[in-house]
Amino acid sequence: MTIDFSSRTSVEQVEEGQELAPRFDPEGLIPCVTTAAGSGEVLMLGYMNAEALKRTIETGEAHYWSRSRQVLWHKGATSGLVQTVVELRVDDDQDAIWLRVQIPGDASCHVGYRSCFYRSVPVGPGAPSDQGKRALKFEEQRKVFDPKKVYGDAPNPTKL
Amino acid sequence: MTIDFSSRTSVEQVEEGQELAPRFDPEGLIPCVTTAAGSGEVLMLGYMNAEALKRTIETGEAHYWSRSRQVLWHKGATSGLVQTVVELRVDDDQDAIWLRVQIPGDASCHVGYRSCFYRSVPVGPGAPSDQGKRALKFEEQRKVFDPKKVYGDAPNPTKL
Repeated sequence: MTIDFSSRTSVEQVEEGQELAPRFDPEGLIPCVTTAAGSGEVLMLGYMNAEALKRTIETGEAHYWSRSRQVLWHKGATSGLVQTVVELRVDDDQDAIWLRVQIPGDASCHVGYRSCFYRSVPVGPGAPSDQGKRALKFEEQRKVFDPKKVYGDAPNPTKL
Repeated sequence: MTIDFSSRTSVEQVEEGQELAPRFDPEGLIPCVTTAAGSGEVLMLGYMNAEALKRTIETGEAHYWSRSRQVLWHKGATSGLVQTVVELRVDDDQDAIWLRVQIPGDASCHVGYRSCFYRSVPVGPGAPSDQGKRALKFEEQRKVFDPKKVYGDAPNPTKL
């Protein structure tokens, strides 16, 4: 079985229609917001190429395109933290995906936290500031797993 | 008052530190997931340039970079649907932003729906499919506002 997308023919088709006609950027990618189906917490922002999106739809497990490793990435293949898709949505102009997923152990981030978004930035004119700089605040107090145990010597994906 | 960012000096600083050192893409943009603070629903996926991120932090109201109009975009300036930031988070490698916002009328999407993600795609091997194509399902049954009344003759931002 393979998944097929429709061509984009009109604004009305894209915005108001029932055809899946995703728009990939010049690098062939579409951004994907992934949230925890239970809590609604944003776990990660990833990218999919056409194959990753098709495999996600076919299998019901989240697949991404790893920009750092330049490979199709079945999330959880290394860590075991496979994401089971509860719902997949597409936005108005079909250039973004939203996945609601369930994950074992409720952990997603390669640093070891539950969500990749584990730090907040104080916002608004009254927030503390040091010469215009605002210190990040950790919203998760402890790591859910030890990334060294899970990922071993795999290279860190963060780029400066 | 102006907001200043830190330079990116090490993976540890970026992932585990308290300095805000965002990474913008080659076009100077960083993607931003915006969710409703109450429901956790994903409202939109937008993009910020450095100025939009700084103004969001300074003012506590969401600012984006409009890629279709190529202007700084104070969300709600036209529609009145200003987004008040309840929390701003940054992800592990600081190349994505998550805003939790409150909006009047609980509406965000230029098409008139509450969320930009108003359609779902059936997922998994057992879902209905027509020659590999899967019909989108509307998850919002009615529009929250009439986009023609709110936006008038402004050009539609959706690109084919």
